[in-house]
This record gives sequence, C-alpha cells and structure tokens, in this order.
Amino acid sequence: MITKELHTSNRILMGPGPSDAHPKVLQAMATPLIGHLDPEFVEIMDEVKEMVQQTFITKNNLTFVVSAPGSAGMETCLVNLIEPGDEVIIGVNGVFGGRMSEIAERCGAKVHRIEKQWGTVVTTADVKAALEKCPKPKLLALVHAETSTGALQPLQEISDLIHNAGGLLMVDAVTSYCGVELQVDEWNIDAIYTGTQKCLSAPPGLSPVSFSERAIKVLDERKTKVQSWFLDLTLVKNYWAGSKRAYHHTAPVSSIFALRESLRLVLEEGLENRWKRHQEVHQVLKTKLENLGFKYLVEEQYRLPNLNSVYLPEGNDEALIRRKLLDEYNIEVGGGLGDFAGKIWRIGIMGESCTLNHVNMLISALEDMKEFKS
Amino acid sequence: MITKELHTSNRILMGPGPSDAHPKVLQAMATPLIGHLDPEFVEIMDEVKEMVQQTFITKNNLTFVVSAPGSAGMETCLVNLIEPGDEVIIGVNGVFGGRMSEIAERCGAKVHRIEKQWGTVVTTADVKAALEKCPKPKLLALVHAETSTGALQPLQEISDLIHNAGGLLMVDAVTSYCGVELQVDEWNIDAIYTGTQKCLSAPPGLSPVSFSERAIKVLDERKTKVQSWFLDLTLVKNYWAGSKRAYHHTAPVSSIFALRESLRLVLEEGLENRWKRHQEVHQVLKTKLENLGFKYLVEEQYRLPNLNSVYLPEGNDEALIRRKLLDEYNIEVGGGLGDFAGKIWRIGIMGESCTLNHVNMLISALEDMKEFKS
Repeated sequence: MITKELHTSNRILMGPGPSDAHPKVLQAMATPLIGHLDPEFVEIMDEVKEMVQQTFITKNNLTFVVSAPGSAGMETCLVNLIEPGDEVIIGVNGVFGGRMSEIAERCGAKVHRIEKQWGTVVTTADVKAALEKCPKPKLLALVHAETSTGALQPLQEISDLIHNAGGLLMVDAVTSYCGVELQVDEWNIDAIYTGTQKCLSAPPGLSPVSFSERAIKVLDERKTKVQSWFLDLTLVKNYWAGSKRAYHHTAPVSSIFALRESLRLVLEEGLENRWKRHQEVHQVLKTKLENLGFKYLVEEQYRLPNLNSVYLPEGNDEALIRRKLLDEYNIEVGGGLGDFAGKIWRIGIMGESCTLNHVNMLISALEDMKEFKS
Repeated sequence: MITKELHTSNRILMGPGPSDAHPKVLQAMATPLIGHLDPEFVEIMDEVKEMVQQTFITKNNLTFVVSAPGSAGMETCLVNLIEPGDEVIIGVNGVFGGRMSEIAERCGAKVHRIEKQWGTVVTTADVKAALEKCPKPKLLALVHAETSTGALQPLQEISDLIHNAGGLLMVDAVTSYCGVELQVDEWNIDAIYTGTQKCLSAPPGLSPVSFSERAIKVLDERKTKVQSWFLDLTLVKNYWAGSKRAYHHTAPVSSIFALRESLRLVLEEGLENRWKRHQEVHQVLKTKLENLGFKYLVEEQYRLPNLNSVYLPEGNDEALIRRKLLDEYNIEVGGGLGDFAGKIWRIGIMGESCTLNHVNMLISALEDMKEFKS
C-alpha cells in the first residue's frame, strides 16, 4: 500500500509543454470547490468565455472550453463538423496533422492529405493542388504551430483559398495560443482548438475551442447525430451558451478556476506584449544555442519562437544529456518524435517558462556539463 | 476586461457532487507542475493505478484513469466494447441509464432498454425477461448508484445471469465508488467507470476505469476501429499499461496529483471503515430529516446512504429554500432532475462532506429558516 504523501522535484519546464505555471494559477487550483451549477460558477464560466474570446481575438458566440486536453479539442472540432462521406483536406507535416487525419477517418471522412516533409509548412501552392483533386471539401485543417517540429504555419492566404472553395478552415492552435500572433476573426478561422499547458501556462487538462457562424451553420445542418455524446456541441453549447445552462456533464471546477486566473494574467500582460516577449527571449536563446553549435530544424521564416527544434552539436548522446539535465539540474527539455526521435531536442520557452533566466539556466547547465560537447 | 482575481464563497457541498475536498487534496492540486513524461510522473501514474485497483478491489491490469469527467468514462467503456450492429441491454431507471443508452446508440448498437420507474432498481426478473427478447447480448449495462434518484442497484445475482448468457457486465459506479461496498472482481464486473468528485472527494475532471480480461478479449477481437481516437483503449493502454509508456495525449498532471492524494486518504481510512462511516452518518441524517417531515423517494433496502433523495414536507417552495440555504448558509444541496425537478432534493453526504457536522449544519439551518415549514 502507498502511504507516502506526494513528493515531486521542483522542475524547470522547458519542453513542449506543460510549461511552468504562475504561482497564482497554482493557488487558484487549490481554491475550495464550489458546485458546477452554483451561480458563482456560472459567472466564472461567463468570465472564462469572455477571456477566451479576447485571447482568440474573436466575437464568436460559440466559444467554450472542452473538459479534457487538447486532443479532445481536436476531436471535438472534427466530430462535430464531419459527417460520414464528407471530403476533407488535411495538412500533414508532423504528428498533429497525422492525428487530425486519423480522427477524421474515424468520423467517416474521405481524407485528402497534403503530405509535407516534417519541419516545413503547407504552402498556398500545396492547397491549390489539393483543391484541384478535391474541389469542394467540407473543410481544410491545418496545424498553426506543429509541436512535433516547431514550424509555424501561415494561415491568411490559405484561408481565402479554402473559403473561395466553399469549405471551412479548421486550425490546431495548441502551441501558438498566447505565444505568437493568432487572429481568429481577422483570419476567418471557422473552428479552432487549443490547450492550456503551453503559452497560457495553466495545468494541462482543458481545451478552449471556438466556432464561427459558418461552422455553426454546418453543425445545425447535420443530417446525422454527432458520434460522440461527450463532445457533442449541440448538447455542450446549451451548457456554455444556453440561457438555461442545461446540465451536460460535471465541469472540472478547479481546472476552470486555474484557467480563469491564467487568462487574467495573459490579459494583464497584454496579448501583443506577450507575443513580443516570446519573440525577444527566443532571439536570445537562438543566439546562445547557435554559439554552442545547435542547428535549427525549421527554416528561419517559419520558425516558432516558443518551441525551438534543434539538432545537437555532433558527437552528443542526446538522451544521456537530456537525462542529466533533468536529474542534476531539474531542467526538462523535450526529445524528438517520429523520425526525429534521438536526433533533435524541442526546447520550449512558453508562458511562465519564457524568461531570460530560463534561457540562462539551460545554457549554463550545458556549458557546465562535462558530457556536453559544443 | 476582467481584472479581478478569483473570488468564491466558502461553500459546504451537500449536493450530488462535487463534495468538499480535503485540504491535502487541494494542496496537491497546487503542486508545481512536472512533465507528463517525467520519470517521476510515470511513477505517480503507477501508484495511482495501484490505488485505483485497491479501491475497485480488482487485480485487473487494464485499470487506468480517463483524462476527463465520468461521462467520458461512460463513453470510454461503451465506445470500446460496442461495434455497429451489436445488441446490448441497458437498465434505465434514471438519467444515467438513459445516457448510456444514448451513447450506445451512437456507437451503432441495437439497444434493449429495461425501463423502470425512476427511484426503483432493475430486478433479476427484469433481466431474465430482457434476456428472453435478446438472448445473446454483447453486454448488460447497469448503474450501481443512480445519482438522479439515489437508488442502489444490487449486482451480484444479475452478474451471473448476464455471464451465463455470454455477455459482459458493465457498471456505472460514479456515485458508489468509495462510499458503499463495490467489489469489481468478486462481483465479476467486466467494465466499470467512476468519477472523482463524489465519495473520493477529489475535484471533478477524471474518470477511473477498469476492464476485466473478458472485456480485453472483446477489445482485442474488434473488427472495426474504435470511433473515438481520444478514448481508444487500444492506444490509451499503451500509455497507462505499456512497457514503453507511448505518448498518447498530455495527461492532466495536477488532477492526477490530487487523485493520488485522495486515493491515499481513502486507503489510510480503509475502504470498509469508509463504507461504514457513510452508513452511520446516513442514519443520523435520515432520522433528522424524517423528524422535519422529509420523505425518502427510494424504498429503504435500495437506498444509497450517501445520496439522499427526499420529498420536502408539504407547503415548501423547494427552489426558494434551496437558494436561501446557498445564499445565507453557503450550503449546497441538489434539486431534482427530470420528472423530479421541483419536487425532491438530493442531499449528498459524500467523502469529506460525510460528517456529523455537515448533517447538523444542514438540519440547523433548516430549523432556523422561517420560510421552511416542517
């Protein structure tokens, strides 16, 4: 039997997420519980909705929070918008584009994949070519910030292409949200989901989502039931946006408290200041990493500032050094996924983990470590 | 823009959940984050798995935690066990049996409902009659503790009936888990899910689940893919039970910390002592409620000790009194659902909310309140 109380090390989180949480966010997590139908909680849900709208930069009324991590947000968007037999186009340039395709197929869609080398992005030419093969797709889904590679996907021109074809634009913004520019209304994004544990610096477990009026029209015109009950927006929306707040499932009260506090801190800093901070700290990190011999995976113009995918200098055992960083310095960086496993590191400077001190702790630890060869 | 820090009232939670959380559980929620692939977190997952096995009283290896509330645990069980065209039998004697039917239909099942009056339970005669119409069901699903009515479903004899017919027994144990006797192995339950916010007294947001070897065999022999990617156990089990701990989705780290602490506290008290405490406090509550003129909905032998569904004494405006309890005494009790809306209260004494002081706070508040007519 386990009788010890919980003990964890005091980690410095510089991987692909979760990032360090602000002490006030952690404190919000520890707030004594209130009921999920308590008038005070309903007010908090309204405040969270308003702040999610502000951080997505959208007026979308159907803006809410899925009671599960980002992958469930992804499934929420796909399962509600797709009906069996629909044709969709999905950009696959990393793990998360692949995951979207997998889920879309489970929804019964015919998926046209735009397969791109990992670390690159989908171009307007790629989308045009896909639209020739599939001229009337239900939607085009792209990953704004591919967490497996650190690539930042431009969206504005592509948004026009898919809308001109009569389809919806669906976007994975898990790693970009609150870290780099993201304009839901301005860029005409129809369905977007994100996570809480990246640049928002809240604990993992929730997924903010927003649907445009065009997406709601598709939802309203469905001929079949949504295959998931838990993620069915025709039901969830009555809880988040209905006048009667119909009970659907028990909301994760504590996580919503923490989300509220993390959103408040983002808006207190200001979204643009926050984007600027991520860019500035990235520049310092980049210079110092390159001085040590690291090389970036992604071409400079498509590089995410907050998730730095880098090849180690030659002659280093990445797993050994990553483990020593964790064990001896309490610093977590991420390893590579897929073909990049064992080859790259993914260094996150996200939200509360995006400070000059974080950069210096990591760089100095590497400089100190006798096993690391720069 | 919202600039206030979070403020909530100090509620006494005596509704159908969430219940009050132990200060140590709240403190665990506020533990600084560690990565979801950190070796320390993997160890915590192992400990949680072991304690979930102990509290379910099972040796099932496929015992794990769904990263979403109880309704997602329900969907996890159904979506993994059912394939299109399967016939299933579901007991419907309240909201949650109805929800299971709804989800099973979305999985493509032909559902045979055993419809029972709300507040009663499914009998062996009911199951025998259902098996005559559907002699080879894939599974029989029952709600052990129906949160909408406060009825406790006997399972042992029915378990033999469904196994003799070659089907699986699936059980909703959201409100019974850690509050009344529940024996997964002894009663031959094949698939079970629960929630964290009832008698476990952790915050809502997670769903412990366990599958028997028989259920795993059904999973392994599936001919179709599970329609949900997020809840697909063929993937999730590699994260919770695989030797390589394959990344599936980002685990809700803080909620797992809190779950670990709440499980530890349950085992420190002892499961049987905990069942006994719920029974004893229930007896005191029952006597005092009946003295005030309340009448129980459920027949005594099928009554849940921890969720007391009661009709108010005649001449009371239940909504008014419930609101005054909340506003003036900070005490939350639950209203009725469905046909019982406006007619009954659901008074929870679950986990940390199951103390003589909770009973006395509620009873005394009612005695003090001039609007309440006993």
